[in-house]
Amino acid sequence: MRRGFGSDNHSGVHPQILAAMVAANVEHAPSYGTDEWSELALKAFREHFGPSAQVFFVFNGTAANVLSLKSAAKTFQSCYCTDISHLNVDECGAPEVMAGVKLISLPSKLGKIQLEELKKAHIRRGDQHCSQGQIISLTQPTEVGTCYSLRELNEIISWAKSERLYVHIDGARLANAATTLGLSLRSLTTELGVDVVSFGGTKNGLMMGEAVVFLNPQLATDFKYHRKQLGQLPSKTRFIAAQFTAYLQNNLWKDIATHSCNMAESLAQRVSDIRAVQVTHPRESNAVFAKIPKEWIKPLREKYFFYVWNEHTFECRWITSWDTTPEDIDGFSQSLKELSQ
Amino acid sequence: MRRGFGSDNHSGVHPQILAAMVAANVEHAPSYGTDEWSELALKAFREHFGPSAQVFFVFNGTAANVLSLKSAAKTFQSCYCTDISHLNVDECGAPEVMAGVKLISLPSKLGKIQLEELKKAHIRRGDQHCSQGQIISLTQPTEVGTCYSLRELNEIISWAKSERLYVHIDGARLANAATTLGLSLRSLTTELGVDVVSFGGTKNGLMMGEAVVFLNPQLATDFKYHRKQLGQLPSKTRFIAAQFTAYLQNNLWKDIATHSCNMAESLAQRVSDIRAVQVTHPRESNAVFAKIPKEWIKPLREKYFFYVWNEHTFECRWITSWDTTPEDIDGFSQSLKELSQ
Amino acid sequence: MRRGFGSDNHSGVHPQILAAMVAANVEHAPSYGTDEWSELALKAFREHFGPSAQVFFVFNGTAANVLSLKSAAKTFQSCYCTDISHLNVDECGAPEVMAGVKLISLPSKLGKIQLEELKKAHIRRGDQHCSQGQIISLTQPTEVGTCYSLRELNEIISWAKSERLYVHIDGARLANAATTLGLSLRSLTTELGVDVVSFGGTKNGLMMGEAVVFLNPQLATDFKYHRKQLGQLPSKTRFIAAQFTAYLQNNLWKDIATHSCNMAESLAQRVSDIRAVQVTHPRESNAVFAKIPKEWIKPLREKYFFYVWNEHTFECRWITSWDTTPEDIDGFSQSLKELSQ
Amino acid sequence: MRRGFGSDNHSGVHPQILAAMVAANVEHAPSYGTDEWSELALKAFREHFGPSAQVFFVFNGTAANVLSLKSAAKTFQSCYCTDISHLNVDECGAPEVMAGVKLISLPSKLGKIQLEELKKAHIRRGDQHCSQGQIISLTQPTEVGTCYSLRELNEIISWAKSERLYVHIDGARLANAATTLGLSLRSLTTELGVDVVSFGGTKNGLMMGEAVVFLNPQLATDFKYHRKQLGQLPSKTRFIAAQFTAYLQNNLWKDIATHSCNMAESLAQRVSDIRAVQVTHPRESNAVFAKIPKEWIKPLREKYFFYVWNEHTFECRWITSWDTTPEDIDGFSQSLKELSQ
Repeated sequence: MRRGFGSDNHSGVHPQILAAMVAANVEHAPSYGTDEWSELALKAFREHFGPSAQVFFVFNGTAANVLSLKSAAKTFQSCYCTDISHLNVDECGAPEVMAGVKLISLPSKLGKIQLEELKKAHIRRGDQHCSQGQIISLTQPTEVGTCYSLRELNEIISWAKSERLYVHIDGARLANAATTLGLSLRSLTTELGVDVVSFGGTKNGLMMGEAVVFLNPQLATDFKYHRKQLGQLPSKTRFIAAQFTAYLQNNLWKDIATHSCNMAESLAQRVSDIRAVQVTHPRESNAVFAKIPKEWIKPLREKYFFYVWNEHTFECRWITSWDTTPEDIDGFSQSLKELSQ
Repeated sequence: MRRGFGSDNHSGVHPQILAAMVAANVEHAPSYGTDEWSELALKAFREHFGPSAQVFFVFNGTAANVLSLKSAAKTFQSCYCTDISHLNVDECGAPEVMAGVKLISLPSKLGKIQLEELKKAHIRRGDQHCSQGQIISLTQPTEVGTCYSLRELNEIISWAKSERLYVHIDGARLANAATTLGLSLRSLTTELGVDVVSFGGTKNGLMMGEAVVFLNPQLATDFKYHRKQLGQLPSKTRFIAAQFTAYLQNNLWKDIATHSCNMAESLAQRVSDIRAVQVTHPRESNAVFAKIPKEWIKPLREKYFFYVWNEHTFECRWITSWDTTPEDIDGFSQSLKELSQ
Repeated sequence: MRRGFGSDNHSGVHPQILAAMVAANVEHAPSYGTDEWSELALKAFREHFGPSAQVFFVFNGTAANVLSLKSAAKTFQSCYCTDISHLNVDECGAPEVMAGVKLISLPSKLGKIQLEELKKAHIRRGDQHCSQGQIISLTQPTEVGTCYSLRELNEIISWAKSERLYVHIDGARLANAATTLGLSLRSLTTELGVDVVSFGGTKNGLMMGEAVVFLNPQLATDFKYHRKQLGQLPSKTRFIAAQFTAYLQNNLWKDIATHSCNMAESLAQRVSDIRAVQVTHPRESNAVFAKIPKEWIKPLREKYFFYVWNEHTFECRWITSWDTTPEDIDGFSQSLKELSQ
Repeated sequence: MRRGFGSDNHSGVHPQILAAMVAANVEHAPSYGTDEWSELALKAFREHFGPSAQVFFVFNGTAANVLSLKSAAKTFQSCYCTDISHLNVDECGAPEVMAGVKLISLPSKLGKIQLEELKKAHIRRGDQHCSQGQIISLTQPTEVGTCYSLRELNEIISWAKSERLYVHIDGARLANAATTLGLSLRSLTTELGVDVVSFGGTKNGLMMGEAVVFLNPQLATDFKYHRKQLGQLPSKTRFIAAQFTAYLQNNLWKDIATHSCNMAESLAQRVSDIRAVQVTHPRESNAVFAKIPKEWIKPLREKYFFYVWNEHTFECRWITSWDTTPEDIDGFSQSLKELSQ
C-alpha cells in the first residue's frame, strides 16, 4: 500500500513494541491476565497514573469506551458527549445498545464540549421520564485534533464533581495531548479528578490493545465481568501487556507522540503557505485538518491516501504517525504545491 | 511459569505464526479488513470451507459465539446447547445479554447434545409466550474432549433442517476434531449443512484471533455492523489475517492438531495404567479427563499446572498443546506414578 | 384534585368508554387477544386505517413507540426524530435500551422535523462504523401542539421512501390532528405511506390502552413476540379492546377531539388579549403554549394545575381534554386577567 | 364464550373491584402515581406487608417479574428458578433480554425448587467467566398448584441469606397460597426475609394490574426509572390503585382466594372418584392437574375449555376462579363421568 495520512492505525507496530511481543513468546503463561507480563504492565501504568489506578486490557477503542460507560452508568442514565465524538458517530450505536447508556450529544466548539451546553442539558434531575445524566465523556485530543487546556478541563471537571457526574476521557491518542500540553499523563487525568480513561495503544504504535484505566477504583468493582461478557477478555494477555510495558517504559510513549506531533506540525506549516489550502483547526496533536479545492482530492489521494472529513465542505484530515517520515511530509506538500500551481 | 496442562491458551505463539506476524509489519496497510493480508486469509479459508464461505475475524471465542448467535437469531429466539457448553457456563451470560438470545441448555452425554432431548425441548412453535428455538449450537470437539461422529452430526443436522433450525459449530478447537476424525474442515461443516462456525485460532497456536465462518451466506448480511457494535472490529487487521493464513497454509493447522492430539493420546495411554487414575472420557482430541485421588491434586499441580474440572468428583482436565513435548508427558506420568506408589 | 390544564391524562375515562368496559365484564373470555371484543376492535380499526392494517394493543405510549421502533429497525440502526420528541426526552432511554435503536435527534421548527436536517443527517450509508438510519418518527400533533400539514408529510414521506426509510407516527393524540386538519385517520397515515402508527387512547378518554397499527404488514411479523417480551401483552384484552371499539365507533373519537380542540381554541383566544401573555405556538390541537410573567405561575397553579414547559423561559403548557368545560376556560382566563391587572 | 377452567384470567372483573374503578372515575387526578387512590393503595399494601414495604404498580405479571429481577441483579448475574417456572418458559425470554439476567433453571419436585439443586448450581463465585448467581425466584403457589410450606421456605431463604442471595416470590396467585397455608401475606413474605414480591392482581379478580412489592427497600431505589423504561408506568394510575385497595380491604382478597381454592378442592374430590382420571399433584391452590385418556380431551373441551399442560402425557390443568360456581364443578365432573362410562 502507498504510504499516506489516512490514519495512525494504517501504520504497523513500532519495532520496540514488536520486539517486546516476540520476547514474551516463551514457554507457558497463565491466561486471562494473571501472568507476569500483566503484573509488569500494571506497574508501568501505576507509575504514570498513580498507585491506585485499576487497569484492564481490552482489544480496541470502541470496547474501552463502551466498558467505561457501562462501569459508570446504569441503563437509565446518560452520557454527555459532543455531537462529533467517536462515541456518538463512530461506534455503530455500541454505547446505547451494548452499554445501555443513552448519549446526549451536545454542540462542540473546536471539537470540545462547552460547559454552558452541559449546564443547559443537565436538567430534570430525579424525573423518571428522563434518562438521567451520569457521566461526561471528553475526547482528548478531540476528534479534530485540538486539546482541552488544563483550565478548560478544570472548569468542566469541577462542575461535574459539583453535580456528582463522573468524567471519562476517551484517550485513544492521549499521549499526543500530554505531549502537546507538556504534561504528564497523571496531571492530565488523575490529578484533575478524572474517573476513568480509555487509554489508547493501537493508534500509537501497538499492534492492538487499549487499556481501561480507572482512577476512581470504585467504578472498577464489576469490570471483570462486564469485560468478559462483552468478549473483551484476552486469553493470552501477555501479548497485550508486553506491548504496553514497552510503550510506557523508557519514554517510548513520549517519543512516539513527540515524533507524530512534530510531523503534523511540520505538515501544517508546509501547507499553510500553499494557495487555496486552508487549515481549519489549530494543530494540537498528530492531525492536520484543511480544506482544499475539491478537484485536488482525487489526484492527491492517488499519491497519498487520506480521508475526506466532511463530505459537504471537502475538509480533509491528514494524520501522522510514529512512522511518518520527513520525506512523507516533503512529498505530500510538494504534491499539494504542484496542484496549486 | 511452570509448564503444564492447564489450557492450550497457556502456550505461546507457534513460531511460524509469529514469523508471519512479524513479516506483516511492513509499511502502511488500510485498516478494518481491506488489506492484502485479509484477502489472502479469505482465500485460504475458502480453500478449506468452500468458495462461498463468508469470513470475519474477531478477537476471541466468546465474541465469535455471541456474534454467530446474533446473526442467526432474533431477540425472541433461543439457542439449544448442552448444559456444559462454553456458551452456557463460560461466557458470563454474554449470549443472553449481548446477543439477546435465550439459551435452552439440554442434558448431554459424553459432552454431546442428544437428538431426543432436542426433540423434547423443541415445542410450542408459534406460541408468543415462549422464546422460539432457532439455532442449535454444537461444540466440536466437545467440552470434555469427545467428537461428534459424522453419523451423529448428520442425524442432528438433518433434523435441524427439517425443523428450519440453524446449526452453529463452536469450533474453538475444530482442527483437532477434523484430525481425530480424519476429515477435512469442509466435510465436517460445509458439506453437512452447517450454517456458521466459530473457528478457533487462539487455542491452536495463534497469538489471538478467531474467525466467524458463514457457510450460509444469508446469515452474514449484517455481520459487519454487529461485529463493530460489539467492539470486535480489529483495526490493524493484517496481524490477525496473517496468522490465519500461516495457520491454514501448508497444513500447519493439521500438523499442530496432530501433534496436540498425539500428545494427549500418549498421555492417556501412560496414565491409564496407573493405579487409582480413572480416565473418564474417550480421548478424541487434545484433552484427557481423569479422576485421581483428591490428595494427589495439590502435589501434582505444584509440578504441572492443570484445572480441576469438577469440584465435587475431583475429575481433572489435562490439555495438551502445539508445544507439549514428550518430556512433558514423561514427567507428568512419572509424577502420577510416584504418587500412586 | 383541583381541575386544571396539566395533561389530558389527568382526566378520567369518558362515560361511553367506561360503559363499554362495564358491559364487557360478562362471563369468561379467552385471554391474550383471542376474544370477541378484540375482533370487533380490529374491525373498527380497519374501517379507519384500511383493510390490511395489523393492530396490536399495548398498555401505554412509551411501549407503543418502543415496539414500533423495534419492529422496524435492527440493533445497528437508527431512528431520526426531533430533539424535543417524546421518544428522545420523555421515555427514559427506552428506545435505545429496550428497542436497541439509536436515536438521531434533529433540530425542530414549530416542533416539526425539517427535511433539510434529515438529509444532512442521513449519511455514511453502508459504513459499518456508523449506526444506519432506518426509520423516521414524526409526532403528530407535535409536542408543542402544532400539526404537520399534508404537504409537509408528503415531502418527508416521499423522501423517506426514496431512501428506503420507514415512517412512524407517534400519534398519542392523532385524533386531534385529524380533526384540526379535517382529515380522516386513513388519509393522514395509510394513504401517505406511513408504515406504523402509535395510536393513542389514554390521552383521549380511555382508561388505558394504546394501539400499534401497522399499515405496512411486513413489519408486523414478529410483533407478538416483541410485545410479549416487553411485558405488554394484556391478558384480559377485552377490556382494552372494548374501549377502542367504543372510541372508534359512532364518531366518538372525533367528538372528543373536536371538543378538546375547541376548548383549546377558546382558551387561546381568551388569553391572547391579556397583557403580558404571549402565545408561543399556533394552536393546532388541544394545547396552548404561552409565556407568562414568572411571578404569575405560583398563584395561577394554585387555582388550576399546569406544567411549566421550559424552565428557562417560563413558557407554560395548557392542555385541554374531553372533560374540559367552558367554565374551566372562563375561570382560568379570568384568573389570568386578574393577575394582569 | 363457554365457561371453563382455562385460566383465572378468562374470568372478568370482580364486581366490587369494578365498582371501585367506576367510583374512581371522578374529576381530575394527577398522573403517574401521585394521586390519592395510590396513597390509599400503598396504605393497604403496608397493612399486609409491613410498614416499610415499597410498592409499585405495573401492568402485568411478566413485567413485575422482569422488573423485580432487574432491580436485584446486574447484567452479569443470574437468577435461580425452576425448569417449569413462568420466568423460564412463559415470558418469551424477557428476563434475559429485558432484564439482562441469565436464568439458571433447576429441576423441580412437585413444582418446587430443591435446596440441594441450588447448592449444586451455586458455584464458581467470583469467576469472571461465569454469570454470578444473585437471586432465587420462588413461585408460590407453584406452576403446578402446590405450595411451599413455611419450613421449606425457611430452609431455602436461610441458605439464600447465608450466601447473600436475594429472594423473589413470583406471587401471581400469592393470595391462594396464603389461604391454603392459613397464613397472612406478611408471614409468608416479609417475616421470612423475602426481598421482593411480584404480587398478582389480574388472576385474582382485577381487570389488570400487578404490584412489585419490595420488602427490602434498598432494591427499590432505581425502580421508578426501570419501570418507566420498560413502558410500565401507568399514567391514569388511580384505576389500578383503586382495584388493589378494593382487593386488599375488607378481606376481599381472602374471600376470593378461599372461594377459588374451595372450588378447586371440590373439583379435585369429585374427579378423584372417576375411573381413569388421575390427579397428578396435591391440590394446594386453585388448580387441579390430572391425566385423563387422550380421547376424552376433545369432547370435554367442547363443553368446558381448559389447557393440556403436557403435550406428551396429556396431563390437563383445570383452573378455578373467583367466579367459578358449584354448577360449573357439577357440570364438569358430570361430563367426565359420562366420558368414563
